[in-house]
Amino acid sequence: MPKVPTDIEIATDAEIKPIKEIADKIGLTEEEWEPYGKHKAKISLSTLERLKETPDGKLILVTSINPTPAGEGKSTVTVGLGQALNRVGHKAVVALREPSLGPTMGIKGGASGGGYAQVIPMEDINLHFTGDIHAITTANNALAAFIDNHIFQGNECEIDARRIVWKRVVDLNDRALRNVVIGLGGSKQGVPREDGFNITVASEIMAIFCLAKDVADMRHRLAKIVVGYQADSTPITVADLGVEGALTLLLKDAIMPNLVQTLENTPAIIHGGPFANIAHGCNSLLATKMASKLGDYVVTEAGFGADLGAEKFLNIKARIGELDPKAVVIVATIRALKLHGGVDQAALKEENLKGLQAGMKNLKKHMETIEAFGLPFVIAINRFVTDTDSEVDYVTKWCEQHGAQVALTEVWEHGGAGGIDLAEKIVEITNDKSSHFQPLYDLEETIEDKIKMIARKVYGANGVQFTPQAKQQILEMTANGWDHLPICMAKTQYSLSDEPTLLGRPENFEITVRELRPSIGAGFLVALTGDVLTMPGLPKEPAALRMDVDEKGNALGLF
Amino acid sequence: MPKVPTDIEIATDAEIKPIKEIADKIGLTEEEWEPYGKHKAKISLSTLERLKETPDGKLILVTSINPTPAGEGKSTVTVGLGQALNRVGHKAVVALREPSLGPTMGIKGGASGGGYAQVIPMEDINLHFTGDIHAITTANNALAAFIDNHIFQGNECEIDARRIVWKRVVDLNDRALRNVVIGLGGSKQGVPREDGFNITVASEIMAIFCLAKDVADMRHRLAKIVVGYQADSTPITVADLGVEGALTLLLKDAIMPNLVQTLENTPAIIHGGPFANIAHGCNSLLATKMASKLGDYVVTEAGFGADLGAEKFLNIKARIGELDPKAVVIVATIRALKLHGGVDQAALKEENLKGLQAGMKNLKKHMETIEAFGLPFVIAINRFVTDTDSEVDYVTKWCEQHGAQVALTEVWEHGGAGGIDLAEKIVEITNDKSSHFQPLYDLEETIEDKIKMIARKVYGANGVQFTPQAKQQILEMTANGWDHLPICMAKTQYSLSDEPTLLGRPENFEITVRELRPSIGAGFLVALTGDVLTMPGLPKEPAALRMDVDEKGNALGLF
Repeated sequence: MPKVPTDIEIATDAEIKPIKEIADKIGLTEEEWEPYGKHKAKISLSTLERLKETPDGKLILVTSINPTPAGEGKSTVTVGLGQALNRVGHKAVVALREPSLGPTMGIKGGASGGGYAQVIPMEDINLHFTGDIHAITTANNALAAFIDNHIFQGNECEIDARRIVWKRVVDLNDRALRNVVIGLGGSKQGVPREDGFNITVASEIMAIFCLAKDVADMRHRLAKIVVGYQADSTPITVADLGVEGALTLLLKDAIMPNLVQTLENTPAIIHGGPFANIAHGCNSLLATKMASKLGDYVVTEAGFGADLGAEKFLNIKARIGELDPKAVVIVATIRALKLHGGVDQAALKEENLKGLQAGMKNLKKHMETIEAFGLPFVIAINRFVTDTDSEVDYVTKWCEQHGAQVALTEVWEHGGAGGIDLAEKIVEITNDKSSHFQPLYDLEETIEDKIKMIARKVYGANGVQFTPQAKQQILEMTANGWDHLPICMAKTQYSLSDEPTLLGRPENFEITVRELRPSIGAGFLVALTGDVLTMPGLPKEPAALRMDVDEKGNALGLF
Repeated sequence: MPKVPTDIEIATDAEIKPIKEIADKIGLTEEEWEPYGKHKAKISLSTLERLKETPDGKLILVTSINPTPAGEGKSTVTVGLGQALNRVGHKAVVALREPSLGPTMGIKGGASGGGYAQVIPMEDINLHFTGDIHAITTANNALAAFIDNHIFQGNECEIDARRIVWKRVVDLNDRALRNVVIGLGGSKQGVPREDGFNITVASEIMAIFCLAKDVADMRHRLAKIVVGYQADSTPITVADLGVEGALTLLLKDAIMPNLVQTLENTPAIIHGGPFANIAHGCNSLLATKMASKLGDYVVTEAGFGADLGAEKFLNIKARIGELDPKAVVIVATIRALKLHGGVDQAALKEENLKGLQAGMKNLKKHMETIEAFGLPFVIAINRFVTDTDSEVDYVTKWCEQHGAQVALTEVWEHGGAGGIDLAEKIVEITNDKSSHFQPLYDLEETIEDKIKMIARKVYGANGVQFTPQAKQQILEMTANGWDHLPICMAKTQYSLSDEPTLLGRPENFEITVRELRPSIGAGFLVALTGDVLTMPGLPKEPAALRMDVDEKGNALGLF
């Protein structure tokens, strides 16, 4: 196989078009977008108003099987499918998440697709982009400062300093900030208390940003954030502090979706990027809606595998946004399937048909999940250079034997040309099969029942154990009237169960819900099934050590 | 006097021109600027290369007498003078600092001039602007994360965790973060240690950003930052950690100066905004140089009064940047002069000629200081609505009797038209009188001698006391080879002395240097004469409580 240049080499060599050409291509008027540099733009929310009678483009969700730590290439397939749909005569728009600087500086070095299926300008997208995440960081930390100042200035709201749940954030991997004590130094410096920092993308404000229908709805959701409790457990909200207006002001420009392009000049809207554990892991609702008004196909993705990202996309985001997804792409890789079949991590590059066969059950479960939501799907085999023809043939035939559409995708190596088969099959099933999308549970069901439904239908669990703490929290949340919100599951992405080492398709297991956290502004309850890392750490050799700027001002070390 | 609308009303009603027109007016080519929205742009540093043979425009520094807590209107006079110079036939460019969000959300509500002498779009400038300060926050905190990670991963550099001097930052007023303990939670979460946060504009990276001559120089200065010490007091730098490239990458776009306009469409370059105590308090050197290549006059300002901002502009920034200032404007207000004459703060709005007379000595000292630097000056009386004609006449005659040029400026009320007299006098003295600018001390002098020179010549002190701690630090800094750097004095802005209540022109006093802090990357040593607040707190009723977004998406509550 020929050598493919690095992502940054491909991105730098790309023939990028002025953003005006991309804006013109999707019919934006001059008043509807603002340039941020020559190759990025923000799209005014007034565009949605102008196009409210325009029929929505067909919404395609890209998800995957349970991933390996390296990921299965969902973003790459999403970008590549968008490019391929354009090659077969459609006006596709790609809708992706914004990368967080934490992982970029830490391990990943970038998150904007890969190979010949990237969004560009990749160095801008991977660094500060249009400043959305910085605006969220600022709003989050301004709220934290308002809370501590409120207590310092007399604590009119009688917030119990031991029960403040609002944490500060940085958009970096910084483990030293996970557990801190603040307000030290004497009576002029604040009130000492235990605290901690999250990474910005784990902030409830990021989740709100991604679920808001418009600026007024964002303001309304910000006002509902619970920041802490009084001694008698009465919740204190942002509205009690009176700062929802200031927080909205800090986010008023960021909330406009960002327009960029792929390597093949396909329009791409990149906006919002919440964690897929403590939050729902999808790009902003406004970006998805905008893309669906501007393209005849919208290709978007959700974090982690179908048991997490797709479940939350469909039960939370699609429900809140009244989205009508038409089809799902389930990305599978030969190496992840082999891992699920019991093959050792170190041996994944070697052909192993028996291991592959044993791992197909993981894919099978996710196919059943998507069917349970009433959606047609295509399986995309995201080919790696180490995959053998026999392995690819095996998976292709397995899919056909199970009545599933399957397409070999080589978008990393060939761009849109490597995704034509996938694109054609997507067009076919969205034309032929009608989707019958419906969420898996009703909001009126109890908190326990909603969690049990997800565990049984999506994870294949026999049942759910609730710890005494979780039971108590469910009682309190129900008493507070929060029980009719959707559930945001926080679970390991590596297994269908809550135990990361249980690969394949675990059977006869229960999951344990240890804790529940209210995200009332975002509009969901987080159910935690294990330790959830909301502030990553840096590795011994961070990607940052390789980063620099060359003499021409170009970025080095992003990939 | 007719009612003047609020700043935000004036700014919103202004006839703002597309930034392309402003860029065209100063001769930028299409390749030399990038739009950030319709009314902001970043100017490529390549512009300086193209114009390197172009003669510099005349550089005018705006400073003031020792201010009252409300400030004396330096930014307003700077903007108004730029507008007035354009009205009298020149191509003036204004060069200002970027506002910090901390004071904006806290007390000030904005910092972009006032009345009819403002830079616009004021709401953008006062909120996230083009993201420069967020980039600095991120670079600062990335470095902090790299330091703690280095220690966590084995501490190859043998940094003494008790002697880390690099602090994290937020661009907010947040007193609860002044003194914290981080790294708690057990051996997986880091190494516990005392720490604290500064406001971003007090960061050494902000000072570096404002003194760098180009990207390579910025990278070189970032590498020299001292982050802490080994147990034997050997300094550990960013270069030792190997992350100067990553920090440069995070700042590569921010370092390009920002172009906006005034209410009268005068080009304005707004870039960088370091604190005037722990740092030098001037906008970026690159912005000043850029403005001097693009206009025939450059009007810029320095923080606080002439004893702090102007002294540091002239001894630090002008020296490092090889700037050649041609004249100084000393802004004086009737109310501040009365305060210096012993009038009670509550009675400043009432006519009081005797108090005014007694306060002139503060102005006199600053006139002598500017003369000591070899620079001609004009005194600008920044008129307030409560000033009486008798008071204005008194100051005018006093200046004439003392051989000083004086101009009544009413730019707040009348825009550029209210600054014609000031503009004409500036043109006159920059044509007639030749400036003989030279810094007050040689870099080769000892640390003590440089501080003593500033104290005697600029403050009028008899001498300088050094605490035992300061003496020890001077020994250590000299041993480290840092003694030939300029001095950045951190002193109260309210008095010529280091005692804030000593108004007027104190005599027979000494100042006490308590501590020295190295800013080796920025390229100066900070001498602290009292408590320096590097993290402000919020008031009981923060400005944020009035902020909101209206139905059309406009900002409310900025002023």
